[in-house]
Amino acid sequence: MGEKAPFLDYPVVILAAGEGTRLRRERDDLPKPLTPVLGLTLLERALLSWVEAGARRFYVVVGWKGDWVATHAREVARRRSLDLEVVDNPHWEEGNGTSVLAARDRITSPFFVSMVDHIFQPSLVDGFVQQVMGKTSTTMAVDPRVTKVFDLADATKVRLEGDRVVDIGKGILPYQAVDMGLFLFGPEIFQALEEARCRGDGSLTGGVKRLVSQGKVEAVRLEEGFWTDVDTPQGLEYAKKELLACVACSRDEGWISRHLNRHLSRWITARLVSTPLTPNHITFMAFLLAVTGGCLFALGKLGTTLLAALLVQAASVVDGCYGEVARLKFMSTPWGAWWDTLLDRYADGAIVLGITWGYSHSHRGTWPWILGLLSLLAFVLVSYAKKEYALRFGHLPHGDAGDKLTRRDLRLFVIFLGGVVNRPFWAMVTVAILSHLWIGWALWEKRKGKV
Amino acid sequence: MGEKAPFLDYPVVILAAGEGTRLRRERDDLPKPLTPVLGLTLLERALLSWVEAGARRFYVVVGWKGDWVATHAREVARRRSLDLEVVDNPHWEEGNGTSVLAARDRITSPFFVSMVDHIFQPSLVDGFVQQVMGKTSTTMAVDPRVTKVFDLADATKVRLEGDRVVDIGKGILPYQAVDMGLFLFGPEIFQALEEARCRGDGSLTGGVKRLVSQGKVEAVRLEEGFWTDVDTPQGLEYAKKELLACVACSRDEGWISRHLNRHLSRWITARLVSTPLTPNHITFMAFLLAVTGGCLFALGKLGTTLLAALLVQAASVVDGCYGEVARLKFMSTPWGAWWDTLLDRYADGAIVLGITWGYSHSHRGTWPWILGLLSLLAFVLVSYAKKEYALRFGHLPHGDAGDKLTRRDLRLFVIFLGGVVNRPFWAMVTVAILSHLWIGWALWEKRKGKV
Repeated sequence: MGEKAPFLDYPVVILAAGEGTRLRRERDDLPKPLTPVLGLTLLERALLSWVEAGARRFYVVVGWKGDWVATHAREVARRRSLDLEVVDNPHWEEGNGTSVLAARDRITSPFFVSMVDHIFQPSLVDGFVQQVMGKTSTTMAVDPRVTKVFDLADATKVRLEGDRVVDIGKGILPYQAVDMGLFLFGPEIFQALEEARCRGDGSLTGGVKRLVSQGKVEAVRLEEGFWTDVDTPQGLEYAKKELLACVACSRDEGWISRHLNRHLSRWITARLVSTPLTPNHITFMAFLLAVTGGCLFALGKLGTTLLAALLVQAASVVDGCYGEVARLKFMSTPWGAWWDTLLDRYADGAIVLGITWGYSHSHRGTWPWILGLLSLLAFVLVSYAKKEYALRFGHLPHGDAGDKLTRRDLRLFVIFLGGVVNRPFWAMVTVAILSHLWIGWALWEKRKGKV
Repeated sequence: MGEKAPFLDYPVVILAAGEGTRLRRERDDLPKPLTPVLGLTLLERALLSWVEAGARRFYVVVGWKGDWVATHAREVARRRSLDLEVVDNPHWEEGNGTSVLAARDRITSPFFVSMVDHIFQPSLVDGFVQQVMGKTSTTMAVDPRVTKVFDLADATKVRLEGDRVVDIGKGILPYQAVDMGLFLFGPEIFQALEEARCRGDGSLTGGVKRLVSQGKVEAVRLEEGFWTDVDTPQGLEYAKKELLACVACSRDEGWISRHLNRHLSRWITARLVSTPLTPNHITFMAFLLAVTGGCLFALGKLGTTLLAALLVQAASVVDGCYGEVARLKFMSTPWGAWWDTLLDRYADGAIVLGITWGYSHSHRGTWPWILGLLSLLAFVLVSYAKKEYALRFGHLPHGDAGDKLTRRDLRLFVIFLGGVVNRPFWAMVTVAILSHLWIGWALWEKRKGKV
């Protein structure tokens, strides 16, 4: 999480000069690059997608309401520690090709170009970078999943022969893929753009078309992951929905997380991203929910137990929001991951303590406490055992299903169900016994396998 | 632990043909390579030191009582899955140079040579291999710590000019270092050995001396770690003592382990290595001691508490034997390390449970149990937090001292002291509170450090 690809030498030119008329209709004067999408503006999202792919040097080309966009770009650069220069394009009205030309004087190496209004799942940008690493001539990312493009009529299509682009344009037929708006250019693009501009076509596609006619453009097919072009309010809504969906299930998750919690956490995340709450705050909220649940369990009454059960499940859901918000706002940090892991364990401790305490009101003697201690040991050790195992053997015990069986989301869900039927103690003890057995089984399995 | 260096292409020739008269006096007919040293014969120890340095192909040259030694060599090879061939040297009485010549026909590349009666801390062999990697001509390991050599009079000395050996022999003067009996040879050694043999010197030193006179021998200085040549019963005793000492403090350890437990564990280890008990059995013994201690604590009487305290400290000592035996007998495995870590956590659980239970006899109510639960959480989480921290930041929180402060050896020692003064519960709770504070401190420190 949050690991960066190796440093990219080539700079990235972000085209952010257009007026974005169709989107602007609803938002009055707000320049398109400043359109908020799940907590980040289009411009910040574009920049950070590239940062996550390893890019370190940026040119942001501005035009319409250039000062406003420039100020925002510089603010993002300062806050996120980016090496960023703003380039003014006075000819922006002639088309986005002029924005690339505006950056011409500053560029001495091959360079990447992407559009501010294209939203990518970050792994897609990274995939493009990985595939073009080392190339120096024009290469463009294309998506062969044409039926999945949101507004196909408006998309730029490409015709391919092998990996070579043989035609490009909105109206060409036949075509095998769609232009994704991710390019690697060599210096030859400037000449091509000038020529296209002289013929009255100031668009980037115009310049690329000239290189295509010279057989100089290669395509990289990216067939996995979400991306879209945001031109209209409908497109924006679609982008938000898809981005949330792909962030919410982009990582290995437990069954309950995936099939139950995600529906709720996604809804909450969509609201949380617009607040100033950081992922670390959200982790702490989940912790507080669990501790409150533990306190209510400790009272040991029917009504409070039900409420406690709901709080525990809520903690599990909010814990999922942590990762979603972190990924959506590019705020994953090693500290955050560590903080999250530790708070989860303390939260488990609070829940076990509360449930055991609550049960001890009606069942005197030491044995509820002994079972409570063993449950706590089980809950912490099952994570610990997995971590130590993975460190030593490079994979998880009992594979993926074995991992999911012992995930926290399932554990908390069983406790939630136990609370709903007013048997949280027995639900907890059952999960604990199964967890201890699971650890024993993992030890035994591996023992057999060794010489 | 137990990680192997990359595969070594060059074979290793182990010279095991001599009669070892001086050592044999006490042992009747036992051939020298079969002399047991802390649980392994000299031959098995020599082979495994090389295996740990990455070697995979062996020639063992036998002579005196060759069948007996050959049988043992093959048995070791089968048990440890080594690629090993036995080479018979009918001329062994002429000197150990003839043993290298006996392997001549099988060798097509540069090769390593070491003596069966030289005992090395394995890191030394590894150090030699690392330094000669890629060389093809004769290189020998020398030790410049001449004052530390056990039987200097009997040692082969070398005179050096820079890294070049200019003279070699038992009686030369002056000399700067001592021959350690680790060689990398190219094919030129065979010719040199033949020539020396013709002149009546069948020793390996004779052959090396000829190469030295041609200026063809380089030296690699190894200045750290224990090694010795075992020729006499006194030398054997010295070797055992030093090997135990260097194995018992070769790794990062807690303060109590190092300054208290080691004196006891070393004594126990010296006895355990000769039994068929594996390191994994020893871990389990330590676990049983801790669990028995926990049970005795649970009785809550003065006498049993004292006994329990002693058992807990004994568990801590025996836990140290695990690593010592594993290293001495080359039996470290990933499974063993995992098993040890998990059993330690379960043992801690048993101790906390026992102490809390014992205390609850005289102090009714829920609060002893609440403190018990929080103590268990502290003991497991402090290890967990360190592991997760190291994974994310690549070092331990609060550095080396911070690590030692929260090691299990110190924790168990405080509980032992608490038990001795009949206050195990408060000793446990104190350590637990400090552990929780330590975790909080680590979180806070790192939080401050981040942007």
